[in-house]
Amino acid sequence: MTDTLSLSLAEIAVLLGEGKLKARHLVEAAIANHERFGGKLMAYSQWAPAHARQCADAADAAFAAGSRAGPLQGIPTSIKDLFAVSGFATFAGSPKRLPAKFEIDGPVVAALRRQLASVMGKTHMVEFAFGGSGQNAHYGSRYNPWDAKAHRSPGGSSSGAGVSLCEGSALLAFGSDTAASVRLPAAMTGNAGLKITKERWSTEGIVPLSFTFDTSGILTRSMADAAFAFAAIDPYLGDSFAFMRRVPTSVDGIRIGLADSWFWDDCENGIADVVRAAIEKLTRAGAVLKEMPLPEAREAYAVFCEGGVSAIELRAFLDRELPDWLATIDPVNAPALKNAENLSAREYLSRRLRLQAATQSAATRFDDIDVIATPTVMFTPHVLAEETGAEKFWARNRKIVHNLVPA
Amino acid sequence: MTDTLSLSLAEIAVLLGEGKLKARHLVEAAIANHERFGGKLMAYSQWAPAHARQCADAADAAFAAGSRAGPLQGIPTSIKDLFAVSGFATFAGSPKRLPAKFEIDGPVVAALRRQLASVMGKTHMVEFAFGGSGQNAHYGSRYNPWDAKAHRSPGGSSSGAGVSLCEGSALLAFGSDTAASVRLPAAMTGNAGLKITKERWSTEGIVPLSFTFDTSGILTRSMADAAFAFAAIDPYLGDSFAFMRRVPTSVDGIRIGLADSWFWDDCENGIADVVRAAIEKLTRAGAVLKEMPLPEAREAYAVFCEGGVSAIELRAFLDRELPDWLATIDPVNAPALKNAENLSAREYLSRRLRLQAATQSAATRFDDIDVIATPTVMFTPHVLAEETGAEKFWARNRKIVHNLVPA
Repeated sequence: MTDTLSLSLAEIAVLLGEGKLKARHLVEAAIANHERFGGKLMAYSQWAPAHARQCADAADAAFAAGSRAGPLQGIPTSIKDLFAVSGFATFAGSPKRLPAKFEIDGPVVAALRRQLASVMGKTHMVEFAFGGSGQNAHYGSRYNPWDAKAHRSPGGSSSGAGVSLCEGSALLAFGSDTAASVRLPAAMTGNAGLKITKERWSTEGIVPLSFTFDTSGILTRSMADAAFAFAAIDPYLGDSFAFMRRVPTSVDGIRIGLADSWFWDDCENGIADVVRAAIEKLTRAGAVLKEMPLPEAREAYAVFCEGGVSAIELRAFLDRELPDWLATIDPVNAPALKNAENLSAREYLSRRLRLQAATQSAATRFDDIDVIATPTVMFTPHVLAEETGAEKFWARNRKIVHNLVPA
Repeated sequence: MTDTLSLSLAEIAVLLGEGKLKARHLVEAAIANHERFGGKLMAYSQWAPAHARQCADAADAAFAAGSRAGPLQGIPTSIKDLFAVSGFATFAGSPKRLPAKFEIDGPVVAALRRQLASVMGKTHMVEFAFGGSGQNAHYGSRYNPWDAKAHRSPGGSSSGAGVSLCEGSALLAFGSDTAASVRLPAAMTGNAGLKITKERWSTEGIVPLSFTFDTSGILTRSMADAAFAFAAIDPYLGDSFAFMRRVPTSVDGIRIGLADSWFWDDCENGIADVVRAAIEKLTRAGAVLKEMPLPEAREAYAVFCEGGVSAIELRAFLDRELPDWLATIDPVNAPALKNAENLSAREYLSRRLRLQAATQSAATRFDDIDVIATPTVMFTPHVLAEETGAEKFWARNRKIVHNLVPA
């Protein structure tokens, strides 16, 4: 069984479709993995093995009847608690269950369930997705599975999502990404993370943090899995199998923009060397490398460091929809939400316009290149006890999201 | 020639296509009309007969060569000065020419020019489209062509657009509509006005007032013309002629929602009677009438009266892009742009969220009806001298946009 779980999503989907593998067997293996590691790792806020077995049996019954509901039929999947998932409570990392209107499936979750994926449960997260360290004062912070001794950050805010992949209880994890919240935990747990382009996937049915920047996203064990799952959910692409056949198998001629020194200079612990070596490998395989100055990233990061737009947008949402939640807000987040009261609309809109201008300018850089290559996180996952208090916490947060915020 | 100008756009387009009418003849008739009435009405800030003749000759040459560039080929058209139109300066109703980046055609103007419409010139407007009365301290306010004696408002902010149709110098007029700026001048000059659904037509190439609410729109002499021109520009519909064939010729079974008393109670000068009579005529022709309470309109109007979001969004735009224009801003608008400095981001976002909730709630009302019927403006066009000073001006403005802001 462990061998089966190490196959790609596309390979597993083929085996399921041919009847050579049962969705129920996959789910049992995922449950066994969670039972082995979950007590320490605590990836899930709501772990739902009985529900997962029901999903798997439904997928198997459909396979037996010759029904193909979609490429993710029978795939064990975890979902961040920021998403409404009917049949589950939504806490969004807060101590109190949110009202029922936050439990109605949005289009992304609906697409997943229509395909008869096996939902393993809802994963832990930073309260209201506000912060990148994976901290949560109400439920404790998740462990990074790569260090059994020190309590290192698994990244956040989708802090349980990457962990669920590492422990083998899910082969696909849904997260949300406003400033970094999919890509950061993916990088810190050794997985692939995909932030979806704004407006491409609906954010309906996802508790908002910043309506300006919220997107959904997926974490997978490989980029090939990310491509497969992306096509399965995306409303604009066709069938995932057909999409995978269209993905180029060679990097020949792919134009890589090498981001400027701002993205590299502070890299710790050999990270820059590893990333440079990977890029060199790609160029030896035929990719073309171009220097790519990206001053827009500095501007976007400057706006973020001045306070950005998320704190006030979250505050406005809580004021309107969940005022009772403000009293219990995580102490590391409370000061930012309180300080947001002093922000003028003029300054807020000035930040929005600066970001808009940077976005438009950066978009033109893709005229000459296909992708921009940068390290994802400049630092190896830190021990969580190292920062205490909101101020130290946010100083660390600014460091770990440095290369992620601009996107 | 005058007879030809009284035909519908679809009829004229057929005649042009069959070679029975020359675009140049249409443009000469339009120029003659402007020369007759333009001195008093002053619909245009940039009147361009030489350019219009060039456009018409190009359209005729294309017709002669058998080329059909689009349904608006050869149609005399006016464009509000808020739009960038290459070859024309953009002032946006301000006393100084805007930088060159505001003179690059956006998608709507590009679509119009690709079809070889005859551009007659740029029409006058309220400075930066901020206000509904049609006032402009820099250039004087336009006249309403329906009263030769008193200086009555033609509506705004697209104040020259409706006038250009009335004087017969254009058969189609482009405007923009943030709170009322197409529908109000259309109603006040006896034309049809169409505010385009937000996001349906790009606002690129249009100087922004409120990025939250800005839309483009068209003014035409009839609803049939509006349907024809809408299809010609709209990126989602097919050919205008095919679209016109799909438009139902009967109102049989059309479900009209009769808006509640909030939209009717303050109507002056028999306006309510006229609108009710028109609705009754439709019901006698087979339309079905339903009462339609619309409390969301009250909420949207309340947000508008509390200060709305346009003033601060315009201020933020001017701060960033056109700071030198603030010193010369129209005196009736200056206080609102100054007061916007005191608005907190929290209050601004609270207004945005209230409007968003009202929008979502109102959208569900169209489950049971096809259209909502209300008077457009509750008042007949006022004499412009009647209000002096910003306070009286804005009190009037709140009255005339009452039924328009909620949409």
